Amino acid sequence: MTRVDVLTAGETMMALRATGPVRLGSGFTAGIAGAESNVAIGLGRLGHTTAWAGRVGSDEAGHLITRTLRAEGVDASAVHRDTAAPTGLIMFEQRLPDVTRVHYLRAGSAGSRLCREDVEALPFEPRIVHITGITPALGPSCRDAVTALCRLARARNAQISLDVNHRPRLWSRAAAAEALAPLAAAADRVIASPDELTLLGDGKPDAIAAQLLDGGAAEVVVKNGDEARSYTADGAHAVPAHRVDLVDSIGAGDAFAAGYLSGLLDGLDVEARLRRAHSAGAFAVQTRGDWEGLPYRDELDLIGLPEGAALR
Amino acid sequence: MTRVDVLTAGETMMALRATGPVRLGSGFTAGIAGAESNVAIGLGRLGHTTAWAGRVGSDEAGHLITRTLRAEGVDASAVHRDTAAPTGLIMFEQRLPDVTRVHYLRAGSAGSRLCREDVEALPFEPRIVHITGITPALGPSCRDAVTALCRLARARNAQISLDVNHRPRLWSRAAAAEALAPLAAAADRVIASPDELTLLGDGKPDAIAAQLLDGGAAEVVVKNGDEARSYTADGAHAVPAHRVDLVDSIGAGDAFAAGYLSGLLDGLDVEARLRRAHSAGAFAVQTRGDWEGLPYRDELDLIGLPEGAALR
Amino acid sequence: MTRVDVLTAGETMMALRATGPVRLGSGFTAGIAGAESNVAIGLGRLGHTTAWAGRVGSDEAGHLITRTLRAEGVDASAVHRDTAAPTGLIMFEQRLPDVTRVHYLRAGSAGSRLCREDVEALPFEPRIVHITGITPALGPSCRDAVTALCRLARARNAQISLDVNHRPRLWSRAAAAEALAPLAAAADRVIASPDELTLLGDGKPDAIAAQLLDGGAAEVVVKNGDEARSYTADGAHAVPAHRVDLVDSIGAGDAFAAGYLSGLLDGLDVEARLRRAHSAGAFAVQTRGDWEGLPYRDELDLIGLPEGAALR
Amino acid sequence: MTRVDVLTAGETMMALRATGPVRLGSGFTAGIAGAESNVAIGLGRLGHTTAWAGRVGSDEAGHLITRTLRAEGVDASAVHRDTAAPTGLIMFEQRLPDVTRVHYLRAGSAGSRLCREDVEALPFEPRIVHITGITPALGPSCRDAVTALCRLARARNAQISLDVNHRPRLWSRAAAAEALAPLAAAADRVIASPDELTLLGDGKPDAIAAQLLDGGAAEVVVKNGDEARSYTADGAHAVPAHRVDLVDSIGAGDAFAAGYLSGLLDGLDVEARLRRAHSAGAFAVQTRGDWEGLPYRDELDLIGLPEGAALR
Amino acid sequence: MTRVDVLTAGETMMALRATGPVRLGSGFTAGIAGAESNVAIGLGRLGHTTAWAGRVGSDEAGHLITRTLRAEGVDASAVHRDTAAPTGLIMFEQRLPDVTRVHYLRAGSAGSRLCREDVEALPFEPRIVHITGITPALGPSCRDAVTALCRLARARNAQISLDVNHRPRLWSRAAAAEALAPLAAAADRVIASPDELTLLGDGKPDAIAAQLLDGGAAEVVVKNGDEARSYTADGAHAVPAHRVDLVDSIGAGDAFAAGYLSGLLDGLDVEARLRRAHSAGAFAVQTRGDWEGLPYRDELDLIGLPEGAALR
Amino acid sequence: MTRVDVLTAGETMMALRATGPVRLGSGFTAGIAGAESNVAIGLGRLGHTTAWAGRVGSDEAGHLITRTLRAEGVDASAVHRDTAAPTGLIMFEQRLPDVTRVHYLRAGSAGSRLCREDVEALPFEPRIVHITGITPALGPSCRDAVTALCRLARARNAQISLDVNHRPRLWSRAAAAEALAPLAAAADRVIASPDELTLLGDGKPDAIAAQLLDGGAAEVVVKNGDEARSYTADGAHAVPAHRVDLVDSIGAGDAFAAGYLSGLLDGLDVEARLRRAHSAGAFAVQTRGDWEGLPYRDELDLIGLPEGAALR
Repeated sequence: MTRVDVLTAGETMMALRATGPVRLGSGFTAGIAGAESNVAIGLGRLGHTTAWAGRVGSDEAGHLITRTLRAEGVDASAVHRDTAAPTGLIMFEQRLPDVTRVHYLRAGSAGSRLCREDVEALPFEPRIVHITGITPALGPSCRDAVTALCRLARARNAQISLDVNHRPRLWSRAAAAEALAPLAAAADRVIASPDELTLLGDGKPDAIAAQLLDGGAAEVVVKNGDEARSYTADGAHAVPAHRVDLVDSIGAGDAFAAGYLSGLLDGLDVEARLRRAHSAGAFAVQTRGDWEGLPYRDELDLIGLPEGAALR
Repeated sequence: MTRVDVLTAGETMMALRATGPVRLGSGFTAGIAGAESNVAIGLGRLGHTTAWAGRVGSDEAGHLITRTLRAEGVDASAVHRDTAAPTGLIMFEQRLPDVTRVHYLRAGSAGSRLCREDVEALPFEPRIVHITGITPALGPSCRDAVTALCRLARARNAQISLDVNHRPRLWSRAAAAEALAPLAAAADRVIASPDELTLLGDGKPDAIAAQLLDGGAAEVVVKNGDEARSYTADGAHAVPAHRVDLVDSIGAGDAFAAGYLSGLLDGLDVEARLRRAHSAGAFAVQTRGDWEGLPYRDELDLIGLPEGAALR
Repeated sequence: MTRVDVLTAGETMMALRATGPVRLGSGFTAGIAGAESNVAIGLGRLGHTTAWAGRVGSDEAGHLITRTLRAEGVDASAVHRDTAAPTGLIMFEQRLPDVTRVHYLRAGSAGSRLCREDVEALPFEPRIVHITGITPALGPSCRDAVTALCRLARARNAQISLDVNHRPRLWSRAAAAEALAPLAAAADRVIASPDELTLLGDGKPDAIAAQLLDGGAAEVVVKNGDEARSYTADGAHAVPAHRVDLVDSIGAGDAFAAGYLSGLLDGLDVEARLRRAHSAGAFAVQTRGDWEGLPYRDELDLIGLPEGAALR
Repeated sequence: MTRVDVLTAGETMMALRATGPVRLGSGFTAGIAGAESNVAIGLGRLGHTTAWAGRVGSDEAGHLITRTLRAEGVDASAVHRDTAAPTGLIMFEQRLPDVTRVHYLRAGSAGSRLCREDVEALPFEPRIVHITGITPALGPSCRDAVTALCRLARARNAQISLDVNHRPRLWSRAAAAEALAPLAAAADRVIASPDELTLLGDGKPDAIAAQLLDGGAAEVVVKNGDEARSYTADGAHAVPAHRVDLVDSIGAGDAFAAGYLSGLLDGLDVEARLRRAHSAGAFAVQTRGDWEGLPYRDELDLIGLPEGAALR
Repeated sequence: MTRVDVLTAGETMMALRATGPVRLGSGFTAGIAGAESNVAIGLGRLGHTTAWAGRVGSDEAGHLITRTLRAEGVDASAVHRDTAAPTGLIMFEQRLPDVTRVHYLRAGSAGSRLCREDVEALPFEPRIVHITGITPALGPSCRDAVTALCRLARARNAQISLDVNHRPRLWSRAAAAEALAPLAAAADRVIASPDELTLLGDGKPDAIAAQLLDGGAAEVVVKNGDEARSYTADGAHAVPAHRVDLVDSIGAGDAFAAGYLSGLLDGLDVEARLRRAHSAGAFAVQTRGDWEGLPYRDELDLIGLPEGAALR
Repeated sequence: MTRVDVLTAGETMMALRATGPVRLGSGFTAGIAGAESNVAIGLGRLGHTTAWAGRVGSDEAGHLITRTLRAEGVDASAVHRDTAAPTGLIMFEQRLPDVTRVHYLRAGSAGSRLCREDVEALPFEPRIVHITGITPALGPSCRDAVTALCRLARARNAQISLDVNHRPRLWSRAAAAEALAPLAAAADRVIASPDELTLLGDGKPDAIAAQLLDGGAAEVVVKNGDEARSYTADGAHAVPAHRVDLVDSIGAGDAFAAGYLSGLLDGLDVEARLRRAHSAGAFAVQTRGDWEGLPYRDELDLIGLPEGAALR
């Protein structure tokens, strides 16, 4: 049984980023992407111990995923190499400076075959178990896996953090709302955009946050590009985001979650952890890739330097 | 005799874009460029049938041009492979974010040897014949070819569309004005910048547009980076351009023309076709290349999405 | 009804070629690959008219396939854009100079959903219908499609050409033998390696070839890297392959088939068509890509030039 | 004895610019960088004759430095190839759009072994000797070399130009202030940022400039990103900088110095030479590299063209 | 105390490989290189547990080294981040297909500051401790570290493996012979080229091997590009190397050592472990990089496939 | 009047090398190429002083040529920047490993406008004037320029070296033979392939060489890929070429000429200068580019190292 700060699980794919228009024959750079592993990498860079569980194919893409996670210091010892299905693929093409096209080859992927057995006996003792609303959207066995993770969290006295992360292409709002209800009920920390929050209750953000706190949550964080607002028993606290030029918005939400959980683990107060969440998000949107530009702990204060700064 | 929505002709060159300063030894990416073929490609992407006529050399660059046009769905069956002259070359170097240096190796090129015989019996039945003010600037035989195209248009009941497209390096304003006069007189649709419009008449834009309408034109479109204004028998209609960050201005005018003609072919009203013209232009200036980023019909509504949108 | 020299059908995929080890995060160049479309492209480059039928996804990879085929002059007007399944993917990684790893993401692909209805009424009048042993390996509906193609060939007085192209990863030898039997029986021209030939009959190559000729075939071509041997009613003729350094063996078989069919269409005698087949194959193995290096008609005599020749 | 407009000396290194995050294994482009040679290159592009003195290793990087200087027209005949130490290295990584990380491998480098003997008998007759505050920070022998250069300037009736160029990583403010005092006292022209100026005297910029003028300087130029201010016996003149989007701030100060000295050599008045300095700086910050984007004389008027200008 | 199959230590550097001539300004790809870590990576790929100890700078290159080792499954938890010296650099330039130029920037590097304290209490229980003749050449403190490693091996009942790895640029043959004598005396397994062997004794290879066996070694392996010969108490066994075309010879010796030690750990007989050593070497010389192409266990049988094999 | 070892003149072009098939849209790397400047660069690398005269366009390609020559130490002070014509272009595409396609855009180029006035008063005092058979093929004014160069050589007591360098695409054998006759008569050193030699006389190589020696030549060098043979008053001496794998044959002849002239300047005996010529040629054919891989003096002994040598 290994002690880790955060345990998370989900599907991670090989990520191909087109270097130009795909239909014109442009090539791709390769990496990995997955909301949960993005968060684990972000936490690792900030100095926390993490583990990620999931399935990869018995192929080169699967090796790329485990190599990358190990490189980033994420414990990947529990990753399951599935010999019966390939690693899923996600392709990004920046169609316009502000519009990115996302294409999946994940139907029947190894990652979507995650099941209860994969996670219910994981040899980790986490302080926090982090889940997202993407995993239950991948099918019944994935939904069971998330439920089992929540049970494991409870059994091992870990808090549960839920990032709603709604993906409209994967399921309907109705299906999402139904599947997310028990997860939100179990979660100690809920992170959502204002729009996502409406999947978890009725009324305005304030009202839904109140319902979640009533239902047992310790904190509800609602964020958009401009601001994050935390609801706790002590009331609501809002912190504005950094104003930066956007380079690539992919992964910004995961960065935010990593920064927030890092602050929580470090015992920062509400506003300080929202500030750290925003800092991590600012790195994400100013750099290419899902997680490649996430900050190391000693880089957090680079946000806010004067324009054109050279660290010489 | 093949029915097409738009028939056009002119010189298309191999386009080399420097990846850095040429005098420092930077390399080049290769593609094709030509105002008329840019318009044909743009129309093809919007779902219209098109044909392009012109000369290319009997060399690899010539094959690149015909391969690219075919790939984009432009009928290139009438392209003439000239064994006596090479395909012309256009080189682009982005000297500063806002300044692009253009260099030509087109003297004596195959494309500039286009002549009356190449076009007078083209086996196409077009709804619109599109010409630009670049072709007549390439020499007397090219000028004859454009005149012959106008005759063909009249004979086959096609409208004539003229994009003035003045290139000061190719000829003087006086020479241009003289050569363009009969083309403007023949044209049903005239597209020009405010400055170009003064090549076609005297006075302010409103006055020159009125002269052209009096002379038989059905519509005069005057556009700059901020706004487009259409003059018809029904009066003037202005539509502002989209506000977007400029990535590469090359090809913006051709995109505008393609969008405008697409709207015309679809029977859109004046303002709707200017809006489509602006949308096509907005794609052009936000992407690299003469035509590579032009929109497909199902992409037209990507302009105006919120910042950082991911189509997932 | 369009007259073409060769009609073919099958699955074509987006082809990603790794520029280094995939598990180390190397990127990819992108293109297309499919045994049948490779042959169509090869024939087009040699001056023949061709058409290819198949399904692609309603995605960017699907557009890449149709754009590329059109660029190469292959009639792609009958390609079916399937909105219910994505375009399949094939990935190549050169593990060692002489060992290439091939990985597929084609389960459930649009291409594998090809069916009888897609091909039975194709508006082409071909001289030859070319099929391969890959398509029937993709599933029952693909098998039906190949059968329907053979019926179409018979109905329109076209010869049938079959390249056995056995893929052990797709099906067993027993399953292949069973499915290929009726196709071989229907085929006028059969192309196979010595090993593949044993899927079509019993005994040594000579004996199996004799059986196929007895069964109605006009010609059986057996080839390996060193030699090709043609069996016809006139007996056997062998022609040695060119001795060239191997750069990339992928696509060599398709090149051979294209060269052979080109010779057949041109009315060359047996040995001359084997020589053309070998020449096309020599281009394929000396260049990267499935089809990118295939020869144009005016390049056929470049094989056999002195070392280091500069065409200046 | 060769007549040159400007003679300068210092350490020039091989400059490696990371194409992505170094710790993720991104590669590098290679060039050269050195404050003094940047100025020499900038002056050469503006049409002035220049010479640079310094030490390079007896290695490929050393050859890159001399090849590049010769290419740019800088007289490198006095460069000393040191067989006992390698050429130093400077690495740049753009961590965020506005934050560049700089890393040196210059301890014990050939360049830092520059000494009095290397420069005291240089066979050049310069109009101006240009020095920076970087060289004396590299060690005692470098400090001696700068002192020797000043002596040479005096002996040959050349003006001395000093760009303070404080590098906090190389030495403390106290050490810098002590070493710079005699250089500032010797200098005819002093260039500094407001912050750097405080190394040379006490009080506000105006006061320190007055002290320097009193001490014998003919001109003190104080500049930041927004404005440059020149103090001479005729009083103070301020000229605002061009408003441009920043691409890469590295080398902006050297560009400014080159533009200023160019104006001085051409006999421009105070405001005109500040304008030329700003123009050169505007090229530097809008292009990648230390010196690669510096303007040639015929390009100076490209600053201020309308957005998206194509020079066609 | 962690049990590992092999523990090793030494200096690992950032490796820059020029993509063309350095003096012409070609760029570099980046990776890591170090004889001992190459062996650790090779063993990890073959399924063995390994740990590497050494010093890296507190810089991005240091992070690249630890990230890469973790990715490859090498335990890097004992790596010392030295804040007082930078990570060393090794640069490779392929001057001719058969000649590679190697350039070092490692004087004063963090890696060369390895000392006794860094290794004497490492928390590993290894079956084998692997050392090379490079480390003692880096200076007295490195020599102490190697001695301490040998003591640790003895204390923990591990075998000692020594790869002589003579680097003439780092020290003289006399100095090497003196420093290597006690290491050879302590070693259970000695690997050397015929030339290197003469540093360890007098006479012909057979005689020196006999002296080493007499001195306590269990096995002496002498190898060149053509053949490897093992001397044990049972006599000499020779196994020829694979005949392959050489792509990049760098790292071949380390690959050989990794293959040999893998065979030893697996209990293979003498000839089988030489065969595995040759296989690993064959991968190394047919791929680019120090270790990037080393084989995984399931790839060992790819050596010896027919030319142009596609694993499809 | 500057003393140089070798003065040469001719046309140098921007050289674009395709990175793949041009008609598929592959990009290009950029450099410069010209038989005479290749020789000058090769001589400069071997330590000789050289000057090159010729015309370039007033464009970026022209700057690339002068920058590159200066970088390589070739005196380019006499290069004429022609404002009335562009710099010519040569494009290379490696169609097959052993077949390179060469395409020119040099009709009307600045370089082909070289004339008598450009060279007749060049301020150089050379030991050798080197000319090739390419320049007179470019037109009458170029032919006059070569004649003027020969006069200058005679007037300044320089030897004349002629490399026949026949380009069949530029002129017929008859025209070449007529124009070359007076040049061969004037030349002290004649270099030719066996085939080219027949342009200069009748009969077998031995006979033609004898005729040239009779006509006043001091030496005739006949070379092919396998061997070089020198004819002088002392008889014939043959030296075989190095056996190396061919990477890129372009520039091999110029490298040979540079090596030969270097040996001549150094006073080597006949066989030694042929050996140096072969060594330079061996570098050229084992590296990419016209001149990029030519040897520096301290590299000459790299030919003949054992396979896979690392200079560490």
